[in-house]
Amino acid sequence: MDNGNQTSKTGTLILIGGAEDKLQEKFILRTVYQFCGGSRARITILPSASISDESASEYKEIFTDFGVEKVEVVPLFNRKDANEPNLVKELESSTGIFLAGGDQSKMVKILQGTKAYHAILNCYQKNGGVIAGTSAGAAAVSNPMIASGPKGSIPRSGMAKIASGLGLSHYLLVDQHFHQRDRMGRLISGVLSYPHMLGIGIDEDTAAVVSSQDQLSVIGRGTVTIIDACQAQCLNPSTTPQGSPLAFSELIIHMLIAGDLFDLNRRTVISKEKSHENFRKSSLSRS
Amino acid sequence: MDNGNQTSKTGTLILIGGAEDKLQEKFILRTVYQFCGGSRARITILPSASISDESASEYKEIFTDFGVEKVEVVPLFNRKDANEPNLVKELESSTGIFLAGGDQSKMVKILQGTKAYHAILNCYQKNGGVIAGTSAGAAAVSNPMIASGPKGSIPRSGMAKIASGLGLSHYLLVDQHFHQRDRMGRLISGVLSYPHMLGIGIDEDTAAVVSSQDQLSVIGRGTVTIIDACQAQCLNPSTTPQGSPLAFSELIIHMLIAGDLFDLNRRTVISKEKSHENFRKSSLSRS
Repeated sequence: MDNGNQTSKTGTLILIGGAEDKLQEKFILRTVYQFCGGSRARITILPSASISDESASEYKEIFTDFGVEKVEVVPLFNRKDANEPNLVKELESSTGIFLAGGDQSKMVKILQGTKAYHAILNCYQKNGGVIAGTSAGAAAVSNPMIASGPKGSIPRSGMAKIASGLGLSHYLLVDQHFHQRDRMGRLISGVLSYPHMLGIGIDEDTAAVVSSQDQLSVIGRGTVTIIDACQAQCLNPSTTPQGSPLAFSELIIHMLIAGDLFDLNRRTVISKEKSHENFRKSSLSRS
Repeated sequence: MDNGNQTSKTGTLILIGGAEDKLQEKFILRTVYQFCGGSRARITILPSASISDESASEYKEIFTDFGVEKVEVVPLFNRKDANEPNLVKELESSTGIFLAGGDQSKMVKILQGTKAYHAILNCYQKNGGVIAGTSAGAAAVSNPMIASGPKGSIPRSGMAKIASGLGLSHYLLVDQHFHQRDRMGRLISGVLSYPHMLGIGIDEDTAAVVSSQDQLSVIGRGTVTIIDACQAQCLNPSTTPQGSPLAFSELIIHMLIAGDLFDLNRRTVISKEKSHENFRKSSLSRS
């Protein structure tokens, strides 16, 4: 993904499954802080998915406590503000942007095509910055994204409601609160419709860290489920009504825990020994 | 599986996920009746997994209503009775044996190694008979079998409690009430321990019909999930404590609905057109 031009460098995505620890060790948020540059980080918190900046203020306090040089909440709650030069400037000068949770469709509607949106893209695609998102903030990173859908372990026709997302990734279909909200069915239903994408189901207090080298590493308490429908075959007739179970073959599932590393291009796990080595190197180079 | 000797012929397994319809169309039980020979069937019902023969009497009434020539409940509730010549004779002369639900470990303890057990084996392995089991009766067919284990979609260390089963199959690890009781985690945990076996998770009012040609076809309202850990790699360290999430890669999942056919030797789905053709032939040849 790195295009070799020294003035342009792809950054890191930190996709958090929601409900990350904010009271004890704060391991996930501390990792975000480290990837953003530690004490030299300049972090902007975007509460656009939420109805208020309440939770964003909580994140600001936590990052401030970690010792971040500069952390700001940028209250973008409508498309007019998302073109406001002063607010956009904050995003442009960030080493990391944190997308708080709420409703992913609300955030995409506010940001899509605005100057703020392009500042986020630039931060990630050109300036080597970090885009971290929790819950709805993680779901919105992909394009298309899962906008909503009912819970349940059986995938059903039309279960995942798909919509346009921010498009920081076009090959990861992200779902969150994954096992806690019983979302295996909707994520499988999503990847069966978009088999070129990898389904990434992230548990609460868990994150998938996607490096510029397209390696995904897992941190936190829960699991990250990777669903690969590339070779899968749908068995249902074309007349299957909405809500009926989907039948399929050859779906590949990987379930990872903290310390595991996955090669997103080759769609395989990287061996544990190598994985720990790579993750340590990656953390050290950023903190 | 057919050994080519005309006097010895492997039969059919009908593995039912429990809670099959007993009031309306009774599609699953009607299929059991057809596979056992229709009006010429001689069906023996074994309630050994249960604490009484109450449900067995209900099955007897249903099969009688279908027009079965001979249907008997054989009340084997201890190992002494399981060696009783008169009761064993009933099993030996059956075209089909129906294992009612309850506790699979209870049934295995009563039957294992007795004359009744060998009569069941002979019915299936030599006389081309049908062994149908519902719920615990389906789980007990394999060896090893899943004896118990908690619900949950995340597979955890030690989640599936494995014990010796009847051993009519040594390569199918059967679980039942599958999606209804949220048993994906325990079945994955089971096949990760026994990767030479295929996990077969059967929903309620659904059955997997396993032919002597090692083809599995699905009937009924729900899904049959087939879990293939043959290529899977466990990622947990050997010190993983009991109850911790299991991490793994390259697990293959197939989810089938009524009409789908699966080749158990090649571990692949047989195409839909061929599947319908084969299933029709198979049904016609038996009813």
